[in-house]
Amino acid sequence: MNGYRDLRVALLGCGSVGAQVARLILEHGDELAARAGARLTLAGIAVRAIDAPRDVDLPRDLFTTDAERLVQGADIVIELMGGIEPAKSLILQALQGGADVVTANKALIAAHGPELAEAAEQVGAQLSYEAAVAAAIPILRPLRESLAGDHITRVLGIVNGSTNYILDRMDRFGDSAEDAARLASELGYLEADPTLDVEGYDAAQKATILASIAFHTEVPVDAVYREGITKITAAQIDAAKHAGYVIKLLAIAERITSADGTDGVSARVYPALIERDHPLAVVYGGKNAVFVEAEAAGELMFYGAGAGGAETASAVLGDLVSAARRHVVGGPGIPGSLHAELPILPVSEVSTAYQVMLEVRDEPGVLAGVAGILATHGVSAASVEQSVEPGATGRATLVIGTHVAREGDLAAMVEALRTSDTVVSVTSILRLEGQA
Amino acid sequence: MNGYRDLRVALLGCGSVGAQVARLILEHGDELAARAGARLTLAGIAVRAIDAPRDVDLPRDLFTTDAERLVQGADIVIELMGGIEPAKSLILQALQGGADVVTANKALIAAHGPELAEAAEQVGAQLSYEAAVAAAIPILRPLRESLAGDHITRVLGIVNGSTNYILDRMDRFGDSAEDAARLASELGYLEADPTLDVEGYDAAQKATILASIAFHTEVPVDAVYREGITKITAAQIDAAKHAGYVIKLLAIAERITSADGTDGVSARVYPALIERDHPLAVVYGGKNAVFVEAEAAGELMFYGAGAGGAETASAVLGDLVSAARRHVVGGPGIPGSLHAELPILPVSEVSTAYQVMLEVRDEPGVLAGVAGILATHGVSAASVEQSVEPGATGRATLVIGTHVAREGDLAAMVEALRTSDTVVSVTSILRLEGQA
Repeated sequence: MNGYRDLRVALLGCGSVGAQVARLILEHGDELAARAGARLTLAGIAVRAIDAPRDVDLPRDLFTTDAERLVQGADIVIELMGGIEPAKSLILQALQGGADVVTANKALIAAHGPELAEAAEQVGAQLSYEAAVAAAIPILRPLRESLAGDHITRVLGIVNGSTNYILDRMDRFGDSAEDAARLASELGYLEADPTLDVEGYDAAQKATILASIAFHTEVPVDAVYREGITKITAAQIDAAKHAGYVIKLLAIAERITSADGTDGVSARVYPALIERDHPLAVVYGGKNAVFVEAEAAGELMFYGAGAGGAETASAVLGDLVSAARRHVVGGPGIPGSLHAELPILPVSEVSTAYQVMLEVRDEPGVLAGVAGILATHGVSAASVEQSVEPGATGRATLVIGTHVAREGDLAAMVEALRTSDTVVSVTSILRLEGQA
Repeated sequence: MNGYRDLRVALLGCGSVGAQVARLILEHGDELAARAGARLTLAGIAVRAIDAPRDVDLPRDLFTTDAERLVQGADIVIELMGGIEPAKSLILQALQGGADVVTANKALIAAHGPELAEAAEQVGAQLSYEAAVAAAIPILRPLRESLAGDHITRVLGIVNGSTNYILDRMDRFGDSAEDAARLASELGYLEADPTLDVEGYDAAQKATILASIAFHTEVPVDAVYREGITKITAAQIDAAKHAGYVIKLLAIAERITSADGTDGVSARVYPALIERDHPLAVVYGGKNAVFVEAEAAGELMFYGAGAGGAETASAVLGDLVSAARRHVVGGPGIPGSLHAELPILPVSEVSTAYQVMLEVRDEPGVLAGVAGILATHGVSAASVEQSVEPGATGRATLVIGTHVAREGDLAAMVEALRTSDTVVSVTSILRLEGQA
């Protein structure tokens, strides 16, 4: 294994992922050298507290609290601190010094990805962040490189393991929403602030990253339409099951055309119905999967672990070897490409089918009244099912499945139903995704 | 789009994939230039007969019958002729001239991959063949690059769409083996010589390629153990379903340790049982999927179309853009890495569980006799189920599920059962794969 050039690797952060990255670099030195064509030397690990407990036993003299100094002179910097600062400043410092940067920091990339990519491009350095979306699953490299000659039309991602776990418990095990959330919390699946998961903020950050790469367009995280899973009820799960669907929280990036003919991008996160025989329907528990539709390639899916120290470390190491090869080969890194500059269109321009559940008066003429409201808004019904709960005197439940229509028309239709005399309440509105 | 360097692309072959590749290069010129950083000019298309009918209408003056001359002066050569010669000689000529080569030729790569990779490495050119395994699915690049810092332990692939279609028809629609095969043939799913599909030769070529990349070791196609699906019966499908399994033809590449402690590689193809809730179990119809297990990343799956002109062209274009970027950036291509040089171990060293179906005499002591044979061969039973068909006087069916044991011991056990007095016949032997 002699004759390899030495590359100095600086590791920033030593949590569950960082500790595994350090372990793999130290334990697999020869193997990594053979694959990278260079010996990867762990120059140091920057942490806040040197004596904090770690998942892995690592040599004490690697640790430092001086991250800035560690970054100086590094060939490759791995940022696993999380948060915006000081991570952002350290990454900029590294890139400006010509070092390649590998990060798993989804919040940072979602908020400042284009600025960091620009800094990397200016010096010909490589910025990579495969682990920022769906942890272990290779998804960004396939989107960016394998599909580089194709046109991606839609990306549907189950990219938040904890909400998928909660919905899966409700679906397959009949848990209540509260029990499922408690179980997810006990298993450590939820973030310290669980609203990041259950309100879809985490998924929205990943939707931003996926949409930017799939469509070569800057998609700010504020432009991602977002609904979480906190209002999903056992009754909705049951109604979905009855109709042959399962409810999944999806991060969606899609090429769409607006009513006025503008070609653009939609990025959105919401719980949606998926047909039971769709490949995404069998993504159980805390797993992640990203379903990609492309003009030539057709339908692809990438499945695996969306969290975990070792799992995320695998993706970080892949980026690390790639960065090392770039140093060996020379030449600039592959720039983050935002050349398409497509407009970001609001969710009202999206076309999907809806499933709407209504509580209505159980009296003649109700169905005709509801059908009239649909027709007025240019929405056509694919199915209508009426059921009367035993003992629910004077009330019936109506489940309406619509054909595909523009979100704006559907929203107006729902508003009209809500204010109609015959409708007692609108109890559920869910979109149907994953259809051709 | 000015200022881009021009790269001359030579296309060899214009069948269903080649025609789509030519169309995409011609139609998406600006887009490809933006992604590759170079303008890709289709210099010509070498074919046997210029006036043969094509799937796509292409400019007549692009066609030539002089492939050798077309290859001269090309920056990137795309080989889609298939077969060993003249494809191999033309690829060697291209590589020796410093051109990058993209091919979808699985037979050629399985037979001569290391020799071609060596030729590429000598001049620093890039040889890539993403489309050779599972067509549209990005699998080779993720294995080679995304998982470059991880240790792959096992790869289980559904890599032949036609046999998957046949088995799926038998499983989900109750077709007989003959009806399913006829349907696959009518739909054009089978190769001109269907034995390449149904006897597992095609899958074995892909197993060779997957094993070589996953384990950095040359795995000759002759070293792949191979059984096809021609002996799979409706009764086996039913028994599998009854026990909670589905039968899939799998191409398997696995790190194993032999009885004498040798670490090595197993590459094999056979129809095997998979649990119904395994992600591979829901790969329906003609789809392909590759399930990857790695030490750090855990379980991953890559799913999509395993055939088709446009689908395969998508993977070819991804390799083309990657080759173009290399020309722009400079520096040598990523060499095919066979540094591990692990021994290839025979199938007798593999450990799996077996499901064995026996026809036995319906008389006292049979179960004890069978159990004794298992024990003699060091095989422990996980389940035994006996059933008597109505009207089958004096005969019973015994389905034995074993715990994991070495293939050699299981084979010896089956042989002892076969020659036992109480066993009328061994009607099915299937391995159970995909377990932890």
